[in-house]
Amino acid sequence: MLLYNNADSGNCYKVRLLCAHLGLELELHELDVVDRSNRPEILGQLNPALRVPVLVLDDGRPLAESNAIIAYLADGTEYLPADRYERAQVLQWLMFEQYSHEPYIAVARFWALFGVVPSDEQRAEKILWGNRALAALDGHLNERRFLVADRYSIADIALYAYTHLAHDGGFDLAVYPAIGPWLERVAAQPGHILITD
Amino acid sequence: MLLYNNADSGNCYKVRLLCAHLGLELELHELDVVDRSNRPEILGQLNPALRVPVLVLDDGRPLAESNAIIAYLADGTEYLPADRYERAQVLQWLMFEQYSHEPYIAVARFWALFGVVPSDEQRAEKILWGNRALAALDGHLNERRFLVADRYSIADIALYAYTHLAHDGGFDLAVYPAIGPWLERVAAQPGHILITD
Repeated sequence: MLLYNNADSGNCYKVRLLCAHLGLELELHELDVVDRSNRPEILGQLNPALRVPVLVLDDGRPLAESNAIIAYLADGTEYLPADRYERAQVLQWLMFEQYSHEPYIAVARFWALFGVVPSDEQRAEKILWGNRALAALDGHLNERRFLVADRYSIADIALYAYTHLAHDGGFDLAVYPAIGPWLERVAAQPGHILITD
Repeated sequence: MLLYNNADSGNCYKVRLLCAHLGLELELHELDVVDRSNRPEILGQLNPALRVPVLVLDDGRPLAESNAIIAYLADGTEYLPADRYERAQVLQWLMFEQYSHEPYIAVARFWALFGVVPSDEQRAEKILWGNRALAALDGHLNERRFLVADRYSIADIALYAYTHLAHDGGFDLAVYPAIGPWLERVAAQPGHILITD
């Protein structure tokens, strides 16, 4: 399978991390996340949103949106529960990640990594809502080992991707007592790889 | 089943619309979307993100995030494909909706409905990115009847919810030739209800 990838992107890392667990090989095609001028030409027929990651299956069919890709790859494996309600709970966390978490945690990190200087108001909004997302995550992880059904799943992979890098964007994870131990449990899973691997 | 609902919310409408198609009865518990001070007390144990909709199943188990709820309810019905790849394509559109569409289209409408006055910069950002989402949707619907697998699914329900109300937020759908006929096809489905029903 071919993955349109960016090495710094937590969204792309989710796919690489799950594939490492599953022993699936990926051919990586690197795209820039700052200069996006070639996106329409390269991704125009593959993803209407023109974003990475995009997975191209062996038969040429494309799939976009990081959380849709990992749900597809995990289907039928230990990383996505078979039970209908537990599967829906995983999907709840995937939706939470893209709506309430990634837009703040990932964007604050992107600004820091690539030297974007936001207004004070923009920066304050990212920090406020990013901390609300981290507090919601921390509260749920209090007395739970993993996000859903007491076992490691793509819900953990999706939330791990940007949470473990949140300090890059100026978030202090030390104030969330349940998050640190959960990050360690995720990193201890067999087949774990780093975003830099 | 009990639905924590708001009558103006497109996210809540998705759930009511699918339940109308499926002939499922809902007991509605209305929550305010402006005064959210009672959210921790009412939703604290049900949804870490404290947002509506939240569905409570007959056995008391809660499920949050509109697109996770409709995926749960549609599982095993004609509104969610059984094929693994088609299911993933539906999920791709659900993720697109929550990341690239709802934060612009729905929020611009919320401001207009509730008299919130954004800065010129904030308003311009919503219009720019909302139109990008509508253009991506329009491009995909060109020569397609529905978003996935040529038939009506929860992908159409999720995107219909706020797209058919986009004019409330100041978007002009007339510039997107494929969107109007698609909205009409969705509204012509058996069991369709209006957001005001």
